[in-house]
Amino acid sequence: MIVEMKTGASRPEVDAVVEKAKSLGLDVQLNLGTDKTVVALLGSNTGQLPTDIFEVLPGVESVTRIMKPYKLASRTFKKADSVVDAGGVKIGGQRIVVMAGPCAVESEAQLMEVAEKVKAAGALILRGGAYKPRSSPFSFQGMKMAGVELLQNARERFGLPVITEVVDTADVSPIAKYADILQIGSRNMQNFSLLTKIGKTGRPVVLKRGFSCTVTEWLTAADYLLAEGNEQVILCERGIRTFEDSARFSLDISSIPVIKKFSHLPIIVDPSHAAGHFSLVPAMARAAIAAGADGLLIEVHPNPKVALVDGAQSLTPSDFARLVEELKPVAKAVGRFI
Amino acid sequence: MIVEMKTGASRPEVDAVVEKAKSLGLDVQLNLGTDKTVVALLGSNTGQLPTDIFEVLPGVESVTRIMKPYKLASRTFKKADSVVDAGGVKIGGQRIVVMAGPCAVESEAQLMEVAEKVKAAGALILRGGAYKPRSSPFSFQGMKMAGVELLQNARERFGLPVITEVVDTADVSPIAKYADILQIGSRNMQNFSLLTKIGKTGRPVVLKRGFSCTVTEWLTAADYLLAEGNEQVILCERGIRTFEDSARFSLDISSIPVIKKFSHLPIIVDPSHAAGHFSLVPAMARAAIAAGADGLLIEVHPNPKVALVDGAQSLTPSDFARLVEELKPVAKAVGRFI
Amino acid sequence: MIVEMKTGASRPEVDAVVEKAKSLGLDVQLNLGTDKTVVALLGSNTGQLPTDIFEVLPGVESVTRIMKPYKLASRTFKKADSVVDAGGVKIGGQRIVVMAGPCAVESEAQLMEVAEKVKAAGALILRGGAYKPRSSPFSFQGMKMAGVELLQNARERFGLPVITEVVDTADVSPIAKYADILQIGSRNMQNFSLLTKIGKTGRPVVLKRGFSCTVTEWLTAADYLLAEGNEQVILCERGIRTFEDSARFSLDISSIPVIKKFSHLPIIVDPSHAAGHFSLVPAMARAAIAAGADGLLIEVHPNPKVALVDGAQSLTPSDFARLVEELKPVAKAVGRFI
Amino acid sequence: MIVEMKTGASRPEVDAVVEKAKSLGLDVQLNLGTDKTVVALLGSNTGQLPTDIFEVLPGVESVTRIMKPYKLASRTFKKADSVVDAGGVKIGGQRIVVMAGPCAVESEAQLMEVAEKVKAAGALILRGGAYKPRSSPFSFQGMKMAGVELLQNARERFGLPVITEVVDTADVSPIAKYADILQIGSRNMQNFSLLTKIGKTGRPVVLKRGFSCTVTEWLTAADYLLAEGNEQVILCERGIRTFEDSARFSLDISSIPVIKKFSHLPIIVDPSHAAGHFSLVPAMARAAIAAGADGLLIEVHPNPKVALVDGAQSLTPSDFARLVEELKPVAKAVGRFI
Repeated sequence: MIVEMKTGASRPEVDAVVEKAKSLGLDVQLNLGTDKTVVALLGSNTGQLPTDIFEVLPGVESVTRIMKPYKLASRTFKKADSVVDAGGVKIGGQRIVVMAGPCAVESEAQLMEVAEKVKAAGALILRGGAYKPRSSPFSFQGMKMAGVELLQNARERFGLPVITEVVDTADVSPIAKYADILQIGSRNMQNFSLLTKIGKTGRPVVLKRGFSCTVTEWLTAADYLLAEGNEQVILCERGIRTFEDSARFSLDISSIPVIKKFSHLPIIVDPSHAAGHFSLVPAMARAAIAAGADGLLIEVHPNPKVALVDGAQSLTPSDFARLVEELKPVAKAVGRFI
Repeated sequence: MIVEMKTGASRPEVDAVVEKAKSLGLDVQLNLGTDKTVVALLGSNTGQLPTDIFEVLPGVESVTRIMKPYKLASRTFKKADSVVDAGGVKIGGQRIVVMAGPCAVESEAQLMEVAEKVKAAGALILRGGAYKPRSSPFSFQGMKMAGVELLQNARERFGLPVITEVVDTADVSPIAKYADILQIGSRNMQNFSLLTKIGKTGRPVVLKRGFSCTVTEWLTAADYLLAEGNEQVILCERGIRTFEDSARFSLDISSIPVIKKFSHLPIIVDPSHAAGHFSLVPAMARAAIAAGADGLLIEVHPNPKVALVDGAQSLTPSDFARLVEELKPVAKAVGRFI
Repeated sequence: MIVEMKTGASRPEVDAVVEKAKSLGLDVQLNLGTDKTVVALLGSNTGQLPTDIFEVLPGVESVTRIMKPYKLASRTFKKADSVVDAGGVKIGGQRIVVMAGPCAVESEAQLMEVAEKVKAAGALILRGGAYKPRSSPFSFQGMKMAGVELLQNARERFGLPVITEVVDTADVSPIAKYADILQIGSRNMQNFSLLTKIGKTGRPVVLKRGFSCTVTEWLTAADYLLAEGNEQVILCERGIRTFEDSARFSLDISSIPVIKKFSHLPIIVDPSHAAGHFSLVPAMARAAIAAGADGLLIEVHPNPKVALVDGAQSLTPSDFARLVEELKPVAKAVGRFI
Repeated sequence: MIVEMKTGASRPEVDAVVEKAKSLGLDVQLNLGTDKTVVALLGSNTGQLPTDIFEVLPGVESVTRIMKPYKLASRTFKKADSVVDAGGVKIGGQRIVVMAGPCAVESEAQLMEVAEKVKAAGALILRGGAYKPRSSPFSFQGMKMAGVELLQNARERFGLPVITEVVDTADVSPIAKYADILQIGSRNMQNFSLLTKIGKTGRPVVLKRGFSCTVTEWLTAADYLLAEGNEQVILCERGIRTFEDSARFSLDISSIPVIKKFSHLPIIVDPSHAAGHFSLVPAMARAAIAAGADGLLIEVHPNPKVALVDGAQSLTPSDFARLVEELKPVAKAVGRFI
């Protein structure tokens, strides 16, 4: 942590910073320039200290963090890539894992049809929303526990592990009984109560990036899961909010190499929510794999025209099958396979 | 809702749009231009219909929503300004209500000292965080229920209604017993489970704007509270996330007249979280009142240097007292008082 | 400048950083922590050095700038507030200066009518666009030199100094002959050729903030003007681009106290371009003054319904007159006058 | 264009809208809903009409544009993909064109070394900045005309067409004599004087996206070039400004399929400026090709450690050669070649 003093800060002001730092067990090194004094604070936990502690002291101009605020999710903490095992499917290895299914579980017939078709096309995991966070209270909110049970049926019938979203701490335990992967949605990335409770289950979890959260905040949120002893964490990039309006969100493609550089956790990409429109999904899915993603989360609906949620971004089963074929040579080009 | 067909869309494609709309009970009017067909869909509930329903139909280029997606929070639904009564203090009337107190309740001594001083300076409501949503699991998480109890003590001792944040559905009932106003934090604005549960309590609630949510999404989230029959809703602007980094967030000053135009709900402003640094708080507080805000939520700490949370953005009690004096003539200049 | 070495960086890697810094005449102080080495580089010109010089060296994790990249615009360089004199009107003093007029000069009749009315209402400077930067080549591009001549006529007739925009280096000299203030538009804030040429004229200049430029970039752009010896620089905040779409741009109200903290230059606000709609202009104008702005730049059109450019954001002369009356008590509340 | 009237708008207010539209030669269709009236305005030029014309009329709530504001750059205007010929190299065909070279031309030795090596590695076009737009006046501003002449030498010696940036209307003619492609930088995307002047030369031009401009604004800016009769226009995505700070800009990967959908112009990608750090360039280059880009613009410096500009984002010649090898199978995977 670097504390920059104001030009003309007095000696007692500098001393107060030094004293405060020492009281926190930090090493202190004074850098006395001609124009201003800069105080370097060193220690293994400076990433977790709030900068406010020093910002409020008189004579301080600014405080800059050098250490990252996340710890357990960092590559410094763990050098080797983590591989998550979800119902026997490995995420983070050489194989790129495609997860597919409907945005919302709507009925047994709908789910079984999709499950059969995405499996045939090459998906290894079935996705389906049962608890749906919707921006308006007047929109369809999902089949809730009945939807989770249908996912469980599909899982047994087709041998596909399933992933579904949890939106309330009260639902963590019942859903964790059935789902192979618990999903934390973008709007809940900083719902720390939910993270803590899901962390405690020890189940594999997909942590979607908050649509306005930095990579640093995302990895710091992952620390909530890891701090509970749950190492089965998969990150999911799903687009960030920007001024651009031709897609629903802007897929932050560079977050993939950035995550690979700073973290050991696997990262998958959800091109459907980023795009908001099916016509953009294939290009974004190809780009994600080329950039190094470990998997994809794709919305597929047997008949998008009658989908209750997010029909515009869903692929038909046949479009999905064609996409998987397109993705295979891209995966091969980067030394992987689907 | 306006459905724009692609140039060269076929008659059956247009017919499919018309049919779909009629099946939903909408009025349809065809606008046949020389270049393209535009279909207008009219009805009182088009704001709540997902645009996806039409976007997926063949031949459709784009779908534009004309009606706003929120309903109960809109000025169309209720013309007159809503006034919330929190423990006898009216928010939304001619008096500008100042809420002040520490970011986090840290001890009885800290809270009582602040309560006494902010009351003396002119605050009408006491704020204090007991459950703190922190970006890192290694940061202080608040005193939790013990903090709520201290707030309750301060309330009795000084006769100030209190506001405190709720972060988990499991905590809604116990906190609602003590707090005059329940606060929903920025990171939970779209935690719809929490909104629904708080809506059911009927208690006054401050709904902070998600730092990357539009005004439209904010009012739509308010609909979750209002739909449960809770009309005691106060909006709170606290800065949005942008590329600018000289303040922690960018206070969206124009959201104030925009909310006044489109909604009947009162709006207050939190300059402390927007600024992130105490030196910017006074200018932003003055601007908020000049722009028409109904109140302010300001962080005050007896000794910001030792604050456990957000010390850099906290005012000292004497700075706060001076600020309130500065604000009085501004309030008067816009026909109000503090 | 702070150079953070990677964990485990070798001694020769650290030495290379030190050597490079010394070759640039910087003081170097090594901070050897238990986990990593941090190198502090000190010197009066580190703000102007590119961080790249160190980022490319092996073993370097990151480089953080402590000194600001701007120099002449900073309050460190000049402590006292600068006051600009434009045709006898002082900007940056106790009086808040209102500049008003049409977005585009359309005809002699239009301009003279506005000039007369805004003067009567209290405007001290007349604005009018002659060269209009329009996003589409098929839109009205302004009256060009004929418009500048009309402004010159209005100036003589009503005794109001005039401000008009320059968009091409080729037009700087002819326009500088007539205009009291040259305006650099938001889209040209980083058109460095234009800045340099306008800097050389020594004429008062309004430098509008690029709608996606940080305050730091803005002040660094101002350095281009100041470096040519032109000290007559006025900054103008006109809204930044964000995800919010209820106003055309988001007025960055906190840029006003931030500029006052870091720079000696006067700052005015253009609520018309930020708002994009006349109904939001009054609240934003009041907020700007309450936050400490030194002036306002407001669009007024005798008949917005037939305006060739930006009619929706223009006030009528009578609305403008009412607004100036509203602003007077706000100015007084912050110790100033209009 | 869709004009939404306010709830309760009077008949004369609706009539005024209709009359205004008819006076502009538009077809008008009234949509009378139960709650509000919506007026559809149809005609082939509504995309070029300002919405303000209607927004200012009494009783109007909002105006929504249906037609895009750009025309000549649209796929509606020209169905087939445009292919640009720059000194014999085709951009927009099946071959993916790699342009490479230093950010800034620094010396003959530097340029010749890079030119030889990037050619050997597979680059088809040589890039090099001679006029550098720098955010600070105290930074190196480029070799200017001497740099252009060196580019011309390199072009003759190695048979590589060259691309270089133009920053001032005064420089367009002299540079156009030598350069095969004129580059318009991100900060000048809406420098309409420059666009018009470059459009008139008829030379191939790379139009970089303004870092905060939408795809729609970008294509509308391209209309300035096309309107002068210059059809040799290549778009270049180079990252947009967002809140994320782990890369210098956020590469908007979805802009590639969006441009392909709405425009006939070829699009290339500059991963170097988007990334800001060489370590991220390869992943972003691979993603760009996988998403459908027609080419790449990559910074290569013989010795990034001593680069005068943007060293941190430059590849060494050997890293560049390795990258081109990596890109070949990705190109093949999407049916193209390098």
